[in-house]
Amino acid sequence: MLDEKALEEYIFENIPISLALGIKVNKVSLQEVILSAPIANNINHKKTVFGGSLQAVATLACWSLIYANLKELKNSYEIVISQSEINYRLPVTNDFTVQCLRPDSIAFEKFIKTLQRHGKARLSLTARITQENKLAVIYEGVFVALSSHHAL
Amino acid sequence: MLDEKALEEYIFENIPISLALGIKVNKVSLQEVILSAPIANNINHKKTVFGGSLQAVATLACWSLIYANLKELKNSYEIVISQSEINYRLPVTNDFTVQCLRPDSIAFEKFIKTLQRHGKARLSLTARITQENKLAVIYEGVFVALSSHHAL
Repeated sequence: MLDEKALEEYIFENIPISLALGIKVNKVSLQEVILSAPIANNINHKKTVFGGSLQAVATLACWSLIYANLKELKNSYEIVISQSEINYRLPVTNDFTVQCLRPDSIAFEKFIKTLQRHGKARLSLTARITQENKLAVIYEGVFVALSSHHAL
Repeated sequence: MLDEKALEEYIFENIPISLALGIKVNKVSLQEVILSAPIANNINHKKTVFGGSLQAVATLACWSLIYANLKELKNSYEIVISQSEINYRLPVTNDFTVQCLRPDSIAFEKFIKTLQRHGKARLSLTARITQENKLAVIYEGVFVALSSHHAL
């Protein structure tokens, strides 16, 4: 099972902009990923967190949740992002954390079964940034996992 | 009129993650903004450009187009992003440029008039990343401009 340190090392090595974003892996399990980043690295002209940074960390949180789950399978798969949507409800004014939860078991089991049967499957994941108990940002990304032998 | 060097300096100073992204301002006019960034700074585990980076540069291109236009007005305004959507149609495999064009004159004039009359207005902008004459990424962001004296 992938742990926080291993995921952090993988992300830093393979997606170097994550170092500039100041990303830390607070938690990784099969059910939940929590990433954090400081406002200092990601500040904008209004002294809040730049919207592009919020989206980048949310993308990585969702990607990591799928990565952690697919590492449990026998075969190896690649994960690409197909589309995403983000709503900036409140400005983020401090260091922030992004949480991505695994969706309900029926949707997730269908994703895994389709992937194993057809070598390709699509999953929609949601990430949230909460600040002082209020939802500040909500992100939804659609990811495609595919067998490493499957042509894109 | 804002020029490339002035916009680049403003972005680098106010949104420091833009330096890590390797952003350059290729063109800024009232009608068009073109930003570019190298793949090296933004590479991912698949040796293509990280989706979070593509979105960050697209956000900055659209933001810059509004910034350039609002600088022409008498009053000063703030620009915040409200939501965005991005479609990753093809992997970006090289240094890339993002283009944002000012929308048709009716929509844009309405935005400016509403802003001047009510101190607040909303504008939807599209940014595109083209690679070898194919549309690789399409981004749409909704931005809110508001008078600096207008409470959020």
